[in-house]
Amino acid sequence: MNTWGQILTLTTFGESHGPAIGGVLDGFPAGITVDTDFVALQMQRRRPGQSTVTTGRQEKDQVEFLSGLLDGVSTGAPIAFIIRNQDQHSSDYDELKDLFRPSHADYAWEQRYGIRDWRGGGRSSARVTAPICVAGALAMLAFRKLIPALDITAFTSQIGPYSTDPSKDMNWTAVMAESNAVRCPDGELASKMEEYIHELRKEQDSTGGCVTCIVRGLPAGIGNPVFDKLEASLAKAMLGINAAKGFEYGDGFASASQRGSEHNDAFRMENGQITTATNHSGGIQGGISNGQPVRFRVAFKPTPTIGREQHTVTRNGSDTTIAAKGRHDPCVVPRAVPVVESLTALILLDQVLSSK
Amino acid sequence: MNTWGQILTLTTFGESHGPAIGGVLDGFPAGITVDTDFVALQMQRRRPGQSTVTTGRQEKDQVEFLSGLLDGVSTGAPIAFIIRNQDQHSSDYDELKDLFRPSHADYAWEQRYGIRDWRGGGRSSARVTAPICVAGALAMLAFRKLIPALDITAFTSQIGPYSTDPSKDMNWTAVMAESNAVRCPDGELASKMEEYIHELRKEQDSTGGCVTCIVRGLPAGIGNPVFDKLEASLAKAMLGINAAKGFEYGDGFASASQRGSEHNDAFRMENGQITTATNHSGGIQGGISNGQPVRFRVAFKPTPTIGREQHTVTRNGSDTTIAAKGRHDPCVVPRAVPVVESLTALILLDQVLSSK
Amino acid sequence: MNTWGQILTLTTFGESHGPAIGGVLDGFPAGITVDTDFVALQMQRRRPGQSTVTTGRQEKDQVEFLSGLLDGVSTGAPIAFIIRNQDQHSSDYDELKDLFRPSHADYAWEQRYGIRDWRGGGRSSARVTAPICVAGALAMLAFRKLIPALDITAFTSQIGPYSTDPSKDMNWTAVMAESNAVRCPDGELASKMEEYIHELRKEQDSTGGCVTCIVRGLPAGIGNPVFDKLEASLAKAMLGINAAKGFEYGDGFASASQRGSEHNDAFRMENGQITTATNHSGGIQGGISNGQPVRFRVAFKPTPTIGREQHTVTRNGSDTTIAAKGRHDPCVVPRAVPVVESLTALILLDQVLSSK
Amino acid sequence: MNTWGQILTLTTFGESHGPAIGGVLDGFPAGITVDTDFVALQMQRRRPGQSTVTTGRQEKDQVEFLSGLLDGVSTGAPIAFIIRNQDQHSSDYDELKDLFRPSHADYAWEQRYGIRDWRGGGRSSARVTAPICVAGALAMLAFRKLIPALDITAFTSQIGPYSTDPSKDMNWTAVMAESNAVRCPDGELASKMEEYIHELRKEQDSTGGCVTCIVRGLPAGIGNPVFDKLEASLAKAMLGINAAKGFEYGDGFASASQRGSEHNDAFRMENGQITTATNHSGGIQGGISNGQPVRFRVAFKPTPTIGREQHTVTRNGSDTTIAAKGRHDPCVVPRAVPVVESLTALILLDQVLSSK
Repeated sequence: MNTWGQILTLTTFGESHGPAIGGVLDGFPAGITVDTDFVALQMQRRRPGQSTVTTGRQEKDQVEFLSGLLDGVSTGAPIAFIIRNQDQHSSDYDELKDLFRPSHADYAWEQRYGIRDWRGGGRSSARVTAPICVAGALAMLAFRKLIPALDITAFTSQIGPYSTDPSKDMNWTAVMAESNAVRCPDGELASKMEEYIHELRKEQDSTGGCVTCIVRGLPAGIGNPVFDKLEASLAKAMLGINAAKGFEYGDGFASASQRGSEHNDAFRMENGQITTATNHSGGIQGGISNGQPVRFRVAFKPTPTIGREQHTVTRNGSDTTIAAKGRHDPCVVPRAVPVVESLTALILLDQVLSSK
Repeated sequence: MNTWGQILTLTTFGESHGPAIGGVLDGFPAGITVDTDFVALQMQRRRPGQSTVTTGRQEKDQVEFLSGLLDGVSTGAPIAFIIRNQDQHSSDYDELKDLFRPSHADYAWEQRYGIRDWRGGGRSSARVTAPICVAGALAMLAFRKLIPALDITAFTSQIGPYSTDPSKDMNWTAVMAESNAVRCPDGELASKMEEYIHELRKEQDSTGGCVTCIVRGLPAGIGNPVFDKLEASLAKAMLGINAAKGFEYGDGFASASQRGSEHNDAFRMENGQITTATNHSGGIQGGISNGQPVRFRVAFKPTPTIGREQHTVTRNGSDTTIAAKGRHDPCVVPRAVPVVESLTALILLDQVLSSK
Repeated sequence: MNTWGQILTLTTFGESHGPAIGGVLDGFPAGITVDTDFVALQMQRRRPGQSTVTTGRQEKDQVEFLSGLLDGVSTGAPIAFIIRNQDQHSSDYDELKDLFRPSHADYAWEQRYGIRDWRGGGRSSARVTAPICVAGALAMLAFRKLIPALDITAFTSQIGPYSTDPSKDMNWTAVMAESNAVRCPDGELASKMEEYIHELRKEQDSTGGCVTCIVRGLPAGIGNPVFDKLEASLAKAMLGINAAKGFEYGDGFASASQRGSEHNDAFRMENGQITTATNHSGGIQGGISNGQPVRFRVAFKPTPTIGREQHTVTRNGSDTTIAAKGRHDPCVVPRAVPVVESLTALILLDQVLSSK
Repeated sequence: MNTWGQILTLTTFGESHGPAIGGVLDGFPAGITVDTDFVALQMQRRRPGQSTVTTGRQEKDQVEFLSGLLDGVSTGAPIAFIIRNQDQHSSDYDELKDLFRPSHADYAWEQRYGIRDWRGGGRSSARVTAPICVAGALAMLAFRKLIPALDITAFTSQIGPYSTDPSKDMNWTAVMAESNAVRCPDGELASKMEEYIHELRKEQDSTGGCVTCIVRGLPAGIGNPVFDKLEASLAKAMLGINAAKGFEYGDGFASASQRGSEHNDAFRMENGQITTATNHSGGIQGGISNGQPVRFRVAFKPTPTIGREQHTVTRNGSDTTIAAKGRHDPCVVPRAVPVVESLTALILLDQVLSSK
């Protein structure tokens, strides 16, 4: 299915090189003013060609809203929006028609459907994250009214060998993250990451990385036990992003080597409020927010499309080689930052609306 | 919601110390013979009290099927089953009524619902995984008929400081994993893990760990692009297990520091079949299986209930301390192994049924 | 699927002659006191053997709650309940194993699943409405707290040739309807209906009929436009009742011969409130309640099981005859009255919870 | 929600006077050739201005497909399509901004959402059925490949006082129905209906009517027991059409006055096949098709918008009057015929895909 959510549902559609991509956001609260400049800003953050570390493909990514708004205010009806595809170099992909790119969805998709839109990855392209950013921007605008104190900030926490110090996660701000092309709030590290990416570009190679996301201001009591746990919904959403390989929240995989006495977050009173001394839990206990900041991390694999020659096979089963010619990001991580934030906003809004 | 799945849906219910726990499995194929011995075996693997490394609580966990079977064969109608709760020491929990256990769901649940079943964690108890094992056993039985070659094997890959070597993941068998109490297929390591758990029990502490799961024999073409990606569905299911803190598939978080040229799985022909030279992808590309073994890992935090005295607060906001008196596992990981396998079977069966 | 609802979901299970039938009600508000006497009363109203006009099968229909309650108060966790099947004369059904009863689900079910629980109709038995009445009773109890003024009253409005006057629909009360065995609030007509049913029983025949339902006190603004219209959700629920053949709301099929000038409900002010002069609309406009009483009618076919000899075929395709020997209602309509009310309560509660 | 279906899901969006209306059809089988001429034909059948008996609003209703197709063939990805709104006389609706039209959704919608798109009914306009016809056309094209023998034919069976003879339902063909402006296959009756509509137009009034639908060639075994019964799904879909007031299948409301001995459909052998002597059941038993033609009828109320002066109230609670000035159908029934067929095709395709 290409729809998700319980109360707030998002359906997306579109392929990389078809006429348009877009989405339908349903269950969105009525009476929210849609600030189209903010939406455009979020699209701008995601789109390729925004800096020297990303692909040269230039897309205006102009969002057209088709429904659900009256004089710029949401009416409770489904909000549909489209983004026309432009600046397509489909001919770049002609040779892909009859072969399977390594570590791409080409082969798996063809096994699933017996047919495949080979132009630029079709439905498997990272371009499908654009509608998510539109919908996410709308969710953020809803929160401005519903929970003004809510703040969702994601940043690049790893690129190749360069990682931020997790113990400083709570120090960073969105301004710090947005101050450089790789969206790493640790400026010194950011320079190294940029340099690394340029180097890889020269070597016709790519790199993986991680995005960390911090949510402040989420009230306690949001989420569900058992199947629709807040962390489980976040995990599903994040693993749906192209190239995502892992998700962890709170101390995550590091918890595996911890002891209970070290991991547990002791409750204590502070100014008459229940709070916790530490936040190894990452703001979620038993599927439900506990009022502490929500903290999670998403791992991304290196962009599979690289300029280097790789071995692969054709659709009719002959061995061959491929060396990508199109314009490709050596690292998707900086562009994934707004996608992570957008999905977080959507998941949280759905859970807030259904936890009432 | 306490229901999940698209075609095959599982609804579970029940609290740790209520009359019974159970589930309803709907959309299950008709004509499958339900081998109740196999179901009992799976329950036996999950239940507490099975070895010296787990809690002493003795539960028979006898499964009663209430519907959907005619002479032991599934009819296509929903299969309901219950397990009566027994051997409850509710009085162990009396003091929990008015305080919040650190890193438990107590506080978050009460914020969510304004009321909380404090007896043994209620709906937040690990006991809710019992119905999942029943349903998972049924899914495994369905696969015996639908895809006989399918093999789902999970094992303990980490407990505290002791980890198996990921490069040997494909060497292990279910028999090796089941040959010791911690379910670690590396026998030497298993001994160290057991010793470590005994030591922690003495120290009234607990430890985290990891479970790795390998699926062999899944055909290519199972899964969905974008929102219901196979890996995203697995992630959501796994993060729904009590104490789970992270999920990764294929090379997972390690991918973040890899290069594309090193991570990509080159396609090649082998005996006239398309296969890949390596399997960094973990058997899934673009949300759909590619015919290679599916491989993923789940991280678990240390059991939050420990005998040591911890600081916490009462429901009416006074500082206090707690030291658990009940019977508790110092490590949930070995018992999580059959839960991981069960959820995998359920997710895969749902995706197989809806990928037709 | 055997689950329905968006926020409040009901999953039911069970066959007529299996160990038990039951359901799981999820998304039910926390903090509702469950009055088990009221639940028992609703079960009593539905169950067979309650009067001389219904089947002689005696069932205690004792409801056992398995989860979701703490000291009789809902906790927000799924509420599971079961009713053990008793007083089964399975041998009555032995001869049905190999033939298809006319106008029953036997043949269609076997075509769907390739297997069929032939004992008493299995999953197709009217017994599946028992869990609906349990869940409906819980929904009514929730409304006592959420919308105390809400009143849902259904009654028998037609049995065979005897119909109540639709223009008097708003005159009847639940007390009037419950004062006789056929649940027809028009006492004179009720006597004729009872007599008719007794006559049919002697003739080993059966009859159809209609149930009308009136909902008072539902606030304006409950429902959804387009796909989840309030009337559409009611229609789906009602057509799910065994033997239901039609649904209409407001003036229903009579609207087809009306003119707009005659059907339209003019708005007018009354005591400073917006109201309508008439209620041809049946309290719903464009899928959403308008604050007027909701009024709808459900048609039921005659019980297909009759004592008279009927022509039919066996599973292996030979012509044969059948004359029912079991105990069967000559008319299901009086027993359908609480089922209609229960489904109405469930639909309304779901829509109220999701219209917030 | 504005989405429906289990495997095949349709999400629609758009308001009468917004930029565009459209839909997203997901779960559609891959490999179906989309004949755009056929889609255009179906749109042509639904659109206003097609004859003298319908509104004069001229809309080209040009469908633009945005995704899910490669060289005109479905790929398994979601198929999004839009229809730009044209020829809007929004000024016709200016006076509606501050009052509630009788028997329209205006008041109820405003109570639901606190805001309302007053231009031409917004989301409550019959224009929302256009995307349903696009999606329905695609479903019909899928059936050409999956079940070529399937035939879905709907026709006008009543307009005001003029009704076709139900006993002749099986005699009519699509060609007969399409041979006149009112889509009534009984030519003589059609003339009377047309005359009646012209008369009403002069009198600035409107009329209700009925559509009957016959499905031939549906195999036995399609549908579900209990909650997703085939008839229940059809009922929900049909009650979702603007102005629909009732649904009945088989003998429907007439069953209420029948006896079992008269209503039951005896099974018998015919050419080695199991069939029924009669079809009072309307092709569905226990929620599942039995291989006989499916037959149902939908009632529609008179168009609420009439030229005559009617009493109503303003948004701020003053009494006032209204006399519609826009262009409006005196009878929606002929245009509802393709909508009924489209929804039938969608429901059946979903059930066929999920009954596998």
